[in-house]
Amino acid sequence: MIRTHDAGSLRATDAGTTVTLAGWVARRRDHGGVIFVDLRDGSGVVQVVFREEDAHALRNEYCVKVVGEVTRRPEGNENPELPTGEIEVTASELDVLSEAAPLPLPVDDQVVAGDDIRLKYRYLDLRRSGPAKAMRLRSRANQLARTVLHERDFLEIETPTLTRSTPEGARDFLVPVRLQPGSWYALPQSPQLFKQLLMVGGMERYYQIARCYRDEDFRADRQPEFTQLDIEMSFVTEDDVIDLGEAIVSALWSDLASYEIPRPIPRITWHDAMARYGSDKPDLRYGLELTELTDYLRGTTFRVFAGAIDAGGYVGAVVMPGGASQTRKELDGWQDWAKARGAKGLAYVVLDAETGEARGPVAKNLSAEHLNGLADAVGAKPGDAIFFAASAETREAQELLGAARIEIAKRAGLIDESAWAFCWVVDAPMFEKTDEGGWTAVHHPFTSPNSEWVDRFEEAPDRALAYAYDIVCNGNEIGGGSIRIHRRDVQQRVFDLLGITPEEAQDKFGFLLEAFSYGPPPHGGIAFGWDRVCMLLAGADSIREVIAFPKTRGGFDPLTGAPTPITAQQRTEAGIDAKPKPAQPSHPGTAGPAAPVADPT
Amino acid sequence: MIRTHDAGSLRATDAGTTVTLAGWVARRRDHGGVIFVDLRDGSGVVQVVFREEDAHALRNEYCVKVVGEVTRRPEGNENPELPTGEIEVTASELDVLSEAAPLPLPVDDQVVAGDDIRLKYRYLDLRRSGPAKAMRLRSRANQLARTVLHERDFLEIETPTLTRSTPEGARDFLVPVRLQPGSWYALPQSPQLFKQLLMVGGMERYYQIARCYRDEDFRADRQPEFTQLDIEMSFVTEDDVIDLGEAIVSALWSDLASYEIPRPIPRITWHDAMARYGSDKPDLRYGLELTELTDYLRGTTFRVFAGAIDAGGYVGAVVMPGGASQTRKELDGWQDWAKARGAKGLAYVVLDAETGEARGPVAKNLSAEHLNGLADAVGAKPGDAIFFAASAETREAQELLGAARIEIAKRAGLIDESAWAFCWVVDAPMFEKTDEGGWTAVHHPFTSPNSEWVDRFEEAPDRALAYAYDIVCNGNEIGGGSIRIHRRDVQQRVFDLLGITPEEAQDKFGFLLEAFSYGPPPHGGIAFGWDRVCMLLAGADSIREVIAFPKTRGGFDPLTGAPTPITAQQRTEAGIDAKPKPAQPSHPGTAGPAAPVADPT
Repeated sequence: MIRTHDAGSLRATDAGTTVTLAGWVARRRDHGGVIFVDLRDGSGVVQVVFREEDAHALRNEYCVKVVGEVTRRPEGNENPELPTGEIEVTASELDVLSEAAPLPLPVDDQVVAGDDIRLKYRYLDLRRSGPAKAMRLRSRANQLARTVLHERDFLEIETPTLTRSTPEGARDFLVPVRLQPGSWYALPQSPQLFKQLLMVGGMERYYQIARCYRDEDFRADRQPEFTQLDIEMSFVTEDDVIDLGEAIVSALWSDLASYEIPRPIPRITWHDAMARYGSDKPDLRYGLELTELTDYLRGTTFRVFAGAIDAGGYVGAVVMPGGASQTRKELDGWQDWAKARGAKGLAYVVLDAETGEARGPVAKNLSAEHLNGLADAVGAKPGDAIFFAASAETREAQELLGAARIEIAKRAGLIDESAWAFCWVVDAPMFEKTDEGGWTAVHHPFTSPNSEWVDRFEEAPDRALAYAYDIVCNGNEIGGGSIRIHRRDVQQRVFDLLGITPEEAQDKFGFLLEAFSYGPPPHGGIAFGWDRVCMLLAGADSIREVIAFPKTRGGFDPLTGAPTPITAQQRTEAGIDAKPKPAQPSHPGTAGPAAPVADPT
Repeated sequence: MIRTHDAGSLRATDAGTTVTLAGWVARRRDHGGVIFVDLRDGSGVVQVVFREEDAHALRNEYCVKVVGEVTRRPEGNENPELPTGEIEVTASELDVLSEAAPLPLPVDDQVVAGDDIRLKYRYLDLRRSGPAKAMRLRSRANQLARTVLHERDFLEIETPTLTRSTPEGARDFLVPVRLQPGSWYALPQSPQLFKQLLMVGGMERYYQIARCYRDEDFRADRQPEFTQLDIEMSFVTEDDVIDLGEAIVSALWSDLASYEIPRPIPRITWHDAMARYGSDKPDLRYGLELTELTDYLRGTTFRVFAGAIDAGGYVGAVVMPGGASQTRKELDGWQDWAKARGAKGLAYVVLDAETGEARGPVAKNLSAEHLNGLADAVGAKPGDAIFFAASAETREAQELLGAARIEIAKRAGLIDESAWAFCWVVDAPMFEKTDEGGWTAVHHPFTSPNSEWVDRFEEAPDRALAYAYDIVCNGNEIGGGSIRIHRRDVQQRVFDLLGITPEEAQDKFGFLLEAFSYGPPPHGGIAFGWDRVCMLLAGADSIREVIAFPKTRGGFDPLTGAPTPITAQQRTEAGIDAKPKPAQPSHPGTAGPAAPVADPT
């Protein structure tokens, strides 16, 4: 090593020691004959004192080697803010390892720079303590998760990222293959199929911190490549996977957030989550539960509510504590908010802070009886506002109220930003109706119905429940998974319900189904959205903060300029425009997608 | 868990315990009223005894759950070969979890199946103990390396795999970007540039078990996607990187091969390796060093040798112990062998086993004096054969002798297959001549000249040496790296020598050079070819044995059928044929390749 000591490790007990340090000039103060330099390396910062001329040439972010003696700072000059604040290093030798041009991005945690500049000069951005800390946190998170998994005899296994493309995989990135011109690989959206094949292969306990790919719009803070902690286990029940998931998040939050997650983490059914919070990923840092009013308001003449009730739908409400004090403009703002979400508006009444009297547009439309009991029915107090949603589609109304609940919490300052609230959302529905009146799998077609429904999901597909579970932290889905179907007869019945013919099944899932004809074990798994987990642990507000070299929302990399056009020669060499040769006849019957289905993190 | 115990863990001390096991029927023997089943799970095998009818239906690889009591085997029926051989499980309940169709690939370590069948049914192949063990070994290898690295404060950091394509990157896989039609990413051949950027970013100690991609012919047991353990460190010298590399391989071989590597691992210079072994990755499990005869044979009238000597080239020899006893056909075979390598032939003399007299085609052409001293000059004994190579190009002749040396070792049975021999090959040359008479970088253009050459490599580019090092195990290069240039002036002089103009440098390496203008630290690194490391540890003869789902030599996956043609709709959706929009003007000067250079593993 070029250095003998880490700058940030020096203490008063090192006084008298001659040290060689190497790092960067974080700050330079010229006091006439004496120059003070804050020297930064990976371990921290130490003050170096130069009495020689040559230090005049130093500028911020020069990379230097310094030989000097550790000395106690003169009394009164200690800096208690700094771990090395009791000492300084009196330099006897200076070696400029490399110079720095004027900085486009100051290496200073106080400076707020735009994302484009930060990403273009990410190597300077990473010298700032915040981004550097995020990288260290992520590395540690990997290590903690792996420790939990290795203690439980999991095998880390790499699965392919150059896999089979399918016409259905509309979000798959495609990759032309030079050696087989006209043929293409796809980059997988997850290792889902391969991890299930590993279970068929008797690997029993698999994990991988896996790179995944999705060629889609990045509105929701997504990246074209992302990482999941991917796990699959054989001979397990849902409880086993959930226990493991809890062990992992507990280890992470204990070490990296100094928070001991109370266990067991509460479980809430998907239907309860929708009914109480209007969300399948409820933020439980605050209360504000939804109240269903369908029965309470039955018989109302208010058209909006009556229409929903008559259609067998749903009317419900959520309370905004103190919401009655909102200005007319603020209350109108909620209508704009609702319309931006695609709703027609957001009906409300406000309760007079003194009298509790219900006022507002909806109040006029409700009977005195309905108005009088309303506050009790929804648990509101004088001074509160009550927001309503009604729809023939229960879920649609619940989701609007769920979104309003989050917005209320923000506007009313109900969120304890230092709090952590975890839950499992379990018993997710198996199927949902397609626009064409058929059924589609909510999770994926290999998700197992639970024991209550496995023998009769055809009776009421809309009510059939799956062994599918998501783990939610502060309203973010951080992981999800399911127990998979391993019985051929059950799989066939699911395909039948989904309207997948044997031919289609063969074409779409051929190789997995073939594998399942050779004694597949019962198995299930989970995948954690690793970028999001690390983002939460880092207290960041975007996954980009925990990715070394992220891309912007359009998939653009300001640092390297990727993606770029390619040349005609590249096109030719990569075989992009080649006509494919006929399929290899020696490998019939292996058709099937590489990764059309995934744990939905 | 569906099971209470692991099958392979049961011992005599468990006798009397009722256990629930789950696994696969490895073997079934029907003894009239009693059926014996070897039940296999991830932990091993146990014998289960069924006295009930229902077990008659069991076939190989059925997945079953069994409840039964552990009992000691009747005396004389113990199987000392089996860890569970003292006991058996007397079944009281049987639950067939899933059935297995007739097997296309017997799950039996004795059966030798073709690679195509093994890969198509890889999930059955992985149930065999050999492949399963290879997966476990690889998982353990990852864990061991990570432990070494985390103990030394390395950070695990993920780098992008969707990066910038360059016209030069002829082996890059390309990826069209749906959201920016006409623009393409490239999959990187290594994280080289990003790991250097991380050093500029002050990360100081980085590692990653990184997926890399190369779209090229797979002759040399290569895969289109492969894995390297990628490492970079700041403020280090070559010795620091070498020490770390030794710590990693020592941990691996100690744990996984029960072999304590003697340290320090011997270092040999690149020139010595070529001179003594005719290879830059010498197999040191056996001796058989080359002897240079250029001086000894100076003045010979034998045209082949004289021509090489007069041209300032090289004549040398390698001895085959006992080689004089080869038949004429065997000796002729060496000519075919040499021609298959692209040489004109392989000159030889044999020394009579009794008299030591030199015979053979070359003997006639050498003077009595040269013949008389030959055996002593090359260290041969009566009964040996001496093979010669001569060329105006020293390296060409040395490499032919190096290849002959390996072939001799094989044919003469000189290789101790149980031995491990490691070395570092250091002081590699910086440059080699191009066909056009210019110079090209042997490693890559960021590799640092060593201290002896850094100020004067222009004086003799062909002799200038780099801080570049490879680690070799049994003749396999398992890792390699270098100290990188961090001084602008040195980088400029290297570019000048290579004939790279500032414009070209900007175009090719723009963003890295820009980063290097902001105080880059001295840094260097290494990358291990992780598939090859695991292959050697597993005692396998192909990297495919240590990859869960490998592809065949043509990049074909017999399991999924990838790669495949794509549909016209896929082409359209992926923007493959779209005309690119003009480059984004807001990001000028960020041009540069994503990954044109790599540690050459």
